[in-house]
Amino acid sequence: MPTGPRTMLLTRRELLSGLAVAAAGSLIPEQTFAQDAPSLRIDAARLQQSLEGLSVYGRPAGGTFADGVSRIAYSDADIAGRRYAMGLMRAAGLDPRIDAAGNLTALREGSDPSLNPILFGSHIDSVPGGGNFDGDLGSMGAIEVMRTLNDASARTRHPLRMYIWQNEEGGLIGSHAAFGDSLDLERQFNGIRLADGVRGIGGDPSRMEAARIAPGSFRCYLELHIEQGGILDKAGIPIGVVEGIVSIDEYGVEIRGFANHAGTTPMPERRNALLAAAMLIEAVQQEVTGEPGSQVGTVGRLTVYPNAPNVVPGLVKHSIELRDLSSDKIARLGEEIRSRARQIAQRTNTEITITKVEHDPAAMASPEIQLQIEQAAASLGLKTMRLPSGAGHDAQMMAKLGPMGMIFVPSVAGVSHSSRELTRWPDCANGANVLLQTILRIDGS
Amino acid sequence: MPTGPRTMLLTRRELLSGLAVAAAGSLIPEQTFAQDAPSLRIDAARLQQSLEGLSVYGRPAGGTFADGVSRIAYSDADIAGRRYAMGLMRAAGLDPRIDAAGNLTALREGSDPSLNPILFGSHIDSVPGGGNFDGDLGSMGAIEVMRTLNDASARTRHPLRMYIWQNEEGGLIGSHAAFGDSLDLERQFNGIRLADGVRGIGGDPSRMEAARIAPGSFRCYLELHIEQGGILDKAGIPIGVVEGIVSIDEYGVEIRGFANHAGTTPMPERRNALLAAAMLIEAVQQEVTGEPGSQVGTVGRLTVYPNAPNVVPGLVKHSIELRDLSSDKIARLGEEIRSRARQIAQRTNTEITITKVEHDPAAMASPEIQLQIEQAAASLGLKTMRLPSGAGHDAQMMAKLGPMGMIFVPSVAGVSHSSRELTRWPDCANGANVLLQTILRIDGS
Repeated sequence: MPTGPRTMLLTRRELLSGLAVAAAGSLIPEQTFAQDAPSLRIDAARLQQSLEGLSVYGRPAGGTFADGVSRIAYSDADIAGRRYAMGLMRAAGLDPRIDAAGNLTALREGSDPSLNPILFGSHIDSVPGGGNFDGDLGSMGAIEVMRTLNDASARTRHPLRMYIWQNEEGGLIGSHAAFGDSLDLERQFNGIRLADGVRGIGGDPSRMEAARIAPGSFRCYLELHIEQGGILDKAGIPIGVVEGIVSIDEYGVEIRGFANHAGTTPMPERRNALLAAAMLIEAVQQEVTGEPGSQVGTVGRLTVYPNAPNVVPGLVKHSIELRDLSSDKIARLGEEIRSRARQIAQRTNTEITITKVEHDPAAMASPEIQLQIEQAAASLGLKTMRLPSGAGHDAQMMAKLGPMGMIFVPSVAGVSHSSRELTRWPDCANGANVLLQTILRIDGS
Repeated sequence: MPTGPRTMLLTRRELLSGLAVAAAGSLIPEQTFAQDAPSLRIDAARLQQSLEGLSVYGRPAGGTFADGVSRIAYSDADIAGRRYAMGLMRAAGLDPRIDAAGNLTALREGSDPSLNPILFGSHIDSVPGGGNFDGDLGSMGAIEVMRTLNDASARTRHPLRMYIWQNEEGGLIGSHAAFGDSLDLERQFNGIRLADGVRGIGGDPSRMEAARIAPGSFRCYLELHIEQGGILDKAGIPIGVVEGIVSIDEYGVEIRGFANHAGTTPMPERRNALLAAAMLIEAVQQEVTGEPGSQVGTVGRLTVYPNAPNVVPGLVKHSIELRDLSSDKIARLGEEIRSRARQIAQRTNTEITITKVEHDPAAMASPEIQLQIEQAAASLGLKTMRLPSGAGHDAQMMAKLGPMGMIFVPSVAGVSHSSRELTRWPDCANGANVLLQTILRIDGS
């Protein structure tokens, strides 16, 4: 439907918003853009600049980019980093908004008002002593995609909406709110109540439900992220297509022996809780590695009581965490570990109780979106492999509301949650280009 | 050499001291006493009363005797307990003194000024949450022996000197000072500097060396103590004759792996420091129990870094403690464990460093004194067995200065350093009677 000059139709609100820039620009006609779209590329140097620019917020005093970042959610560094991101969003022709839950979001209008938006994004908060790629790449990548489209004056059919989710590292807080989970506003994150944290970043904790995204209200959700594992790096493959985010079972284990004098208690009389724990740690390893597959099992936290060199440990508490795309598989492994624990308790004359403390179901990626990512990568001449995500991501909340897909890029040596976290610049650029081309392919399909 | 009435000869100082009571009493002539000595017995009910009376100092609020005691060295409870002990010593006709190091001591004169004293004693400080027998029995037993002799107006040939050593549980502090070790006065014990602790209990930290006991200056040192292990209790034997106090090797172990995400790090890529530690804990158990003997080996302290359920442990620090009467045996076991650690480091792709942090040599009991204890017990119709002391005692410091012997009585179920520590009253009385008769046998030999 032909219209008069677009500027004539702008409302006062549109004029005041950054959207006006994109909307008011002379857009390439849809048909021409559809032809040009496959050759569109993000600006790799600018993406690098954005990541380097973001890295100063939460950088250790006197450090460099290589010293990583501590940009804990709700901290001053987090607030400063978000302000920086909003500046970049404006430079990309967007009008960033803060939703009631504190998530940063911005919409780029599409040409077909009947279509649901394509969503994409990630997070910029970090763990203490984290790296400059986890979350940051997907966030800066999303802005770079928007800016590339803006620079090209390209109009997609679908509206595009990007998110920078708040407090991913504290437990996907922003995307939980978007899903509609009611959150405990009194819960503390690094000494800050969630209510105060949300208020501090510009949200409104009294109406968190306003941040909800309705099921089925978007075409799909896409997230570019570093792998955080070493599979792609080891295989030399630049793009990972995520099959899904694994299911997690976490158990709390309590082993009760009897604390006694390490000098006076003969070996056969001991009820050594730490010896039992050692046997159970090995049993977890054996059960998890005893069959093919990419399942993992970890005893990551362990505390000994009374914890003195001259006392036979009377009590040990430890975690067991099992992850796999298949909930059934980790449930079965859990049962096998329980059975091993019963034998160990008998052998060591201890009592072992194992309690399931958490079950996160798997979040499967949409098969259609996986295929779109693969085809986008192929069009860029990039090899792909399918793999599960062993880490949790905001994408797992979005997967409950609509089709989800994730693009992984290699983490050098699989290091993450560390200042040594590294994804090479060409891999960062490849990931953002795959995100761009996946969006454009879905938009055109 | 006949003298006039003893009271005539007392100095003013003797008159002021409790010693005057014993010295002034009409003593049984030596020959008569030597005949009566084998039938002399301590007062079991009075010994029980002393132990029950002592138990209130450091008892948990609202608790009973069965709730144990926290009479930490230099605490108010320790000071009050020492005051109580001094009262009992006076009631036994003694003049308790506090030496420069803070040890409580009292001398009972002998009839032969050419003879060195027979020393005996123990301690009354406890571990936090300890029991009412560890140290207390040997201390109250020593006072009861003195009181029994006093009640019988018995005069031994040798002078008798008892000690209640200060801060045994903090590392044999009082007996270290008596041996002549120079101690770090700035060292903290439960938040109290040693200098302040010594001053608080009536010592003089500026002249600790005045508490020294010269090598060869005593006939022997005897200590009655609960076994703290379960060997006598299990065997149903009332008296243990200690062969010596074991040698201790303590090692510090540091295992360096690589901390990584527990979701994204495939099992074969992990460098899991806790898995390596688990294997090493089992290796210690296997090496220590893999040959006959009473050697023990313990991993009692272990700390995991970063200690989170979702992080593969990158660093584990733990202790290894080995004990046996033979220093050679534990040195060899240490080497075997080092060799196992090298294999484990290779298998788990970790680095394991093992550092010896302490070596306490064994302190052997005098064969002659062991025989005297056995004969004393036999004269009382009590079965004995020889056994090592797996725990350290003040007796090990005294063994460096002269002949040493220790008398053990059964600990029910081998429990010690616990409110559940228990030695039955008849066993307590047996132990004190064996101490008394051993003293009298050595005195007569």
